Amino acid sequence: MDATIQTTALTHHGAKRMLQAAVEAAEKSGQPQCIVIVEASGQLIAEIRMTGAKFLSRKSAKSKALTAASLGVPSADAPDAVRPAIGAATGGAVTVLPGGLPIIVDGVLVGGIGVGSGTGAQDIDVAQAALAAIGAPL
Amino acid sequence: MDATIQTTALTHHGAKRMLQAAVEAAEKSGQPQCIVIVEASGQLIAEIRMTGAKFLSRKSAKSKALTAASLGVPSADAPDAVRPAIGAATGGAVTVLPGGLPIIVDGVLVGGIGVGSGTGAQDIDVAQAALAAIGAPL
Amino acid sequence: MDATIQTTALTHHGAKRMLQAAVEAAEKSGQPQCIVIVEASGQLIAEIRMTGAKFLSRKSAKSKALTAASLGVPSADAPDAVRPAIGAATGGAVTVLPGGLPIIVDGVLVGGIGVGSGTGAQDIDVAQAALAAIGAPL
Amino acid sequence: MDATIQTTALTHHGAKRMLQAAVEAAEKSGQPQCIVIVEASGQLIAEIRMTGAKFLSRKSAKSKALTAASLGVPSADAPDAVRPAIGAATGGAVTVLPGGLPIIVDGVLVGGIGVGSGTGAQDIDVAQAALAAIGAPL
Repeated sequence: MDATIQTTALTHHGAKRMLQAAVEAAEKSGQPQCIVIVEASGQLIAEIRMTGAKFLSRKSAKSKALTAASLGVPSADAPDAVRPAIGAATGGAVTVLPGGLPIIVDGVLVGGIGVGSGTGAQDIDVAQAALAAIGAPL
Repeated sequence: MDATIQTTALTHHGAKRMLQAAVEAAEKSGQPQCIVIVEASGQLIAEIRMTGAKFLSRKSAKSKALTAASLGVPSADAPDAVRPAIGAATGGAVTVLPGGLPIIVDGVLVGGIGVGSGTGAQDIDVAQAALAAIGAPL
Repeated sequence: MDATIQTTALTHHGAKRMLQAAVEAAEKSGQPQCIVIVEASGQLIAEIRMTGAKFLSRKSAKSKALTAASLGVPSADAPDAVRPAIGAATGGAVTVLPGGLPIIVDGVLVGGIGVGSGTGAQDIDVAQAALAAIGAPL
Repeated sequence: MDATIQTTALTHHGAKRMLQAAVEAAEKSGQPQCIVIVEASGQLIAEIRMTGAKFLSRKSAKSKALTAASLGVPSADAPDAVRPAIGAATGGAVTVLPGGLPIIVDGVLVGGIGVGSGTGAQDIDVAQAALAAIGAPL
């Protein structure tokens, strides 16, 4: 392996389009949401807490985004066997709560989005609306 | 939606009355308590640790207050399905321990109160005494 | 004083408009920025880290936003006498770095915006563009 | 020295009286304050953030209370030589900002009170009003 590689990174333009679509989907559903978008490294790119969303859902939405960005799969898909242990071992950063989806562009994992404040199904719907806004697979 | 909305906020006068009633109820019961009152954003307004209360209950009382203020329901009422996961994903901020009650005035969620150091029933009694002191529904 | 008061709160719609205007101003200047918007309590409403911005500026932008929201004046305007001491005593939350501005609507302090990654002048320009977007005084 | 000693401890009753007097003094002055009372160990007994006080002053008021309780002298009296170094070495817990006073009863250091949000003089006035309420020397 060479000392460096070419990679793909999510821009703030991509994140803004995702945020916009997520907010619109949440408004349509009537459930205000906390929405967090992180890049592949886990570093935050964008976040919004909608008026009326649960403020502690900022934390769970962040964990969902981190989990999806780290594992490359939806947060709810972590293997059953490791669920409590992995959460504890990562200080809660890895969560199996639904609403975290990986952001994959051209087959490259470029980050994760986490949504929290609604039911699991509502959270996933909003995250999927965000992915659709940049043509990423759901 | 406009850039701003009109809303209702708990004052320190309200919080002081709640604290006073909570302390009196705890003294009457013979069980010293830790009592924490936060506003709707989660920011602390008032706290007291009674002589003889468990000092670590300051932390659980804070989590109970935050949980009730964020969810708008008693801390013990979080849905069964998410209980362990949501606690982990929020670094312990969301708790299902009894003793956290939302503070609702004129139908507006203005904060949360958390009480800890006694049994669940004692904690709830003290929190309810505090709500009664400002005419908030129990 | 009653147990509650009526007040004004910044919505996510207002924050989104501010974020949009701030990003546009930063793109026009050619200097990517970290932008953080908090409500009057200090609780975060929205954040974006533009592609190419310094990632540690997320922290200073947050401190600038908190400082402006707490003091009700630009972060750079803290009194000379207390500058180093107040920063230390608040764990760095109070900063005198330029780029934090209070968000004032109809005379009410509803939050703060913090911008970091450029020069002080660039940071302030971007924060002012955000305030202008919701008609708040600069 | 024996394995144990008799000592004097501040109760929540004492702290409540101090809080009440501090709030009244602050209201009289027209400057809302953050007020923190800790026992001799540094553990918090009581805190209030008055409506309109700067929320970040919760942190500096806490540091002032801790400083006074730890040193046994007013926070502003720390020796010049160690001021920046001691603040840094304690993560900001030791501060030289005015507004922290030791609580001394019958010659025993039983805690500290920290007040923040006003000018140094206003902060000290409020702290002194609290001490007077339990007959402690100013």
